[in-house]
Amino acid sequence: MTAPKLLVSRRIRATPYTSRVEALGVSGYSVVNHTVLPKGFQKSVVDDYWHLKTHVQLWDVGCQRQVELLGPDAARLVQLMTPRDLRNARAGQCLYAPLIDENASMLNDPIILKLAEDRYWLSIADADILLWAKGLALGMGLEVAIDEPDVWPLSIQGPKSDDLAARIFGEHVREIGFFKFRECEFAGQPVIVARTGYSKQGGFEMYPEGFSFGTSLWDAIWQAGPDLQLSPGCPNLIERVEGGLLSYGNEMTRTENPLECGLEKYCQLDGSVDYIGREALQRLAETGPRRLIRGLIFDGEACPPCQHPWPISVDKRQVGYVTSAIWSPRFGRNVALAMLDRGFWEPGTAVAIDWGDGTDRSGIVTNLPMEDA
Amino acid sequence: MTAPKLLVSRRIRATPYTSRVEALGVSGYSVVNHTVLPKGFQKSVVDDYWHLKTHVQLWDVGCQRQVELLGPDAARLVQLMTPRDLRNARAGQCLYAPLIDENASMLNDPIILKLAEDRYWLSIADADILLWAKGLALGMGLEVAIDEPDVWPLSIQGPKSDDLAARIFGEHVREIGFFKFRECEFAGQPVIVARTGYSKQGGFEMYPEGFSFGTSLWDAIWQAGPDLQLSPGCPNLIERVEGGLLSYGNEMTRTENPLECGLEKYCQLDGSVDYIGREALQRLAETGPRRLIRGLIFDGEACPPCQHPWPISVDKRQVGYVTSAIWSPRFGRNVALAMLDRGFWEPGTAVAIDWGDGTDRSGIVTNLPMEDA
Repeated sequence: MTAPKLLVSRRIRATPYTSRVEALGVSGYSVVNHTVLPKGFQKSVVDDYWHLKTHVQLWDVGCQRQVELLGPDAARLVQLMTPRDLRNARAGQCLYAPLIDENASMLNDPIILKLAEDRYWLSIADADILLWAKGLALGMGLEVAIDEPDVWPLSIQGPKSDDLAARIFGEHVREIGFFKFRECEFAGQPVIVARTGYSKQGGFEMYPEGFSFGTSLWDAIWQAGPDLQLSPGCPNLIERVEGGLLSYGNEMTRTENPLECGLEKYCQLDGSVDYIGREALQRLAETGPRRLIRGLIFDGEACPPCQHPWPISVDKRQVGYVTSAIWSPRFGRNVALAMLDRGFWEPGTAVAIDWGDGTDRSGIVTNLPMEDA
Repeated sequence: MTAPKLLVSRRIRATPYTSRVEALGVSGYSVVNHTVLPKGFQKSVVDDYWHLKTHVQLWDVGCQRQVELLGPDAARLVQLMTPRDLRNARAGQCLYAPLIDENASMLNDPIILKLAEDRYWLSIADADILLWAKGLALGMGLEVAIDEPDVWPLSIQGPKSDDLAARIFGEHVREIGFFKFRECEFAGQPVIVARTGYSKQGGFEMYPEGFSFGTSLWDAIWQAGPDLQLSPGCPNLIERVEGGLLSYGNEMTRTENPLECGLEKYCQLDGSVDYIGREALQRLAETGPRRLIRGLIFDGEACPPCQHPWPISVDKRQVGYVTSAIWSPRFGRNVALAMLDRGFWEPGTAVAIDWGDGTDRSGIVTNLPMEDA
């Protein structure tokens, strides 16, 4: 598929940062949660990759919509929605959590922000989890209000993120622990600031409430960054694949379960926690997954974008599929995320990849995140 | 917002027709239900409008995903999901139906295809109604299987649609009644063919099962059409606005209720049918809607796309908002769909529209569909 224009309307929402990323020369969008997500700027994806690993970037991730659960049954509902054990979760924690259905199929993989004992935000990937939560709550008669607050996440990512954040919120932001958040202040208003983000380079995600307040925060960050080589950015596919960061809709769909996605450490399997899909997941765990997410490094010129799963084979027999792939300047070869059948997922396994042109390229299975060769 | 490129991945699905519309020069996409929707071809939207009203077009509407409800509780669940009275619905009927939540807020407006007493397809607009249906069913303990079948709708629209459809499926398709469907045959396989579609020019929607079978059907239709001036097409914004066809996410969101959207005729309000949101809807009906969807014809050069609701005012006081707008060659003025407050929705009311440049343009409220001036 080529890349025709994205035609927008009220239905595909702009964020508080859209006018800013357009002024900065955004070159393309994706759509996540009925909202635009910038996918590139003037720099090449390779230059952007090196910049992200060296400096700091400001990302419009307003598409990471929040599903708020509020009320006496909020804690019960959020635990029903995920196999992750939330019994010891404390307010101020960010919890990466697979969401599954009654068959243990993946529905989403949000970060859950525990705001209070009776208040949670699910910072979601691309699916209307609000409807899933509302359906469950209504069907079960739970006492919980479910809504999408007027919150528009933005993110700074890269090794200079602490220096930049300190200029906006004060030195104390340096003390925020990994996957923790604090309520900070900007322009006299509270903002949740979390040490999270969709890269492996460190950084923060901020959750301003209110459209114009979000724009003001963006502007303040942008103005504070020139000497840190602050650049507009977005999730970088090279960095994401090398780092083993999964994307709902790409690596994970309703066809995959969390064990296959390498998320067993987020699955409480001893029966002590009640959640939807528990029996199905326990059965799957007994036999173990029949396929597993892995990295892949493979030959050939720079590969095209992976728009359909590409078949992976050994001795002409299909043993898996590629879900995301791109040329890596660090390895000087293509890198990919891939689902591999049992017996073929050991790192070092030699496989062949056909990206749709009928040619087999040689590849090697790797661990995730990918280590330097 | 300008129109940068749409970057695609596995997450934003291609349809069986994507390769075909790209070969035919598709100029832009939108994204609906995690799937691409063509938004234009080489012809201008005005040429496309006249063509649609004169000849016949082939549309890739694969994004109209189906939510299948199957099993003993399928009929109960589908009735719970809509205020439309389905008690007299028969297999073979297509039923346009608002879906609402417990507050009577709009969640979607699918066409429901009743396939059998225990089997329904909801041909949905842009929202993950599958998750809503699954949540309700699981929460209420209903015995119903809910899934998205491998069905990829495509549509022919325009006055020559009957002639074209007859060449593919036989003369009997001419007998299919409005909002009825039949199981027809193509290449030895069954295909549901319905006299429906997202235009007011007449036509059919077809529901082939299987990706490559869909592509074969597209190719056969395309090859059968040259002497009918068959052209690739897509929902035409001019025709849609003039015809008063609403779009979920544009005219209708969780902020609006079905009475405001002019859908009262699809709302059973006498208490004889049990559905989610009934009490809320009955309360709203007692006082009547406080705003109502209407048409609008207004001055000025060709307006920009409506990406945020534009304020509508009378004597500098806001009395409504525009949700979709475009230049109409038929009226020689701009046309729009708009929500207007009580007291200001009578056809003929004079209003002012500001599309974001601080200038008020004069406009007149109209009925829907818009009649010739």
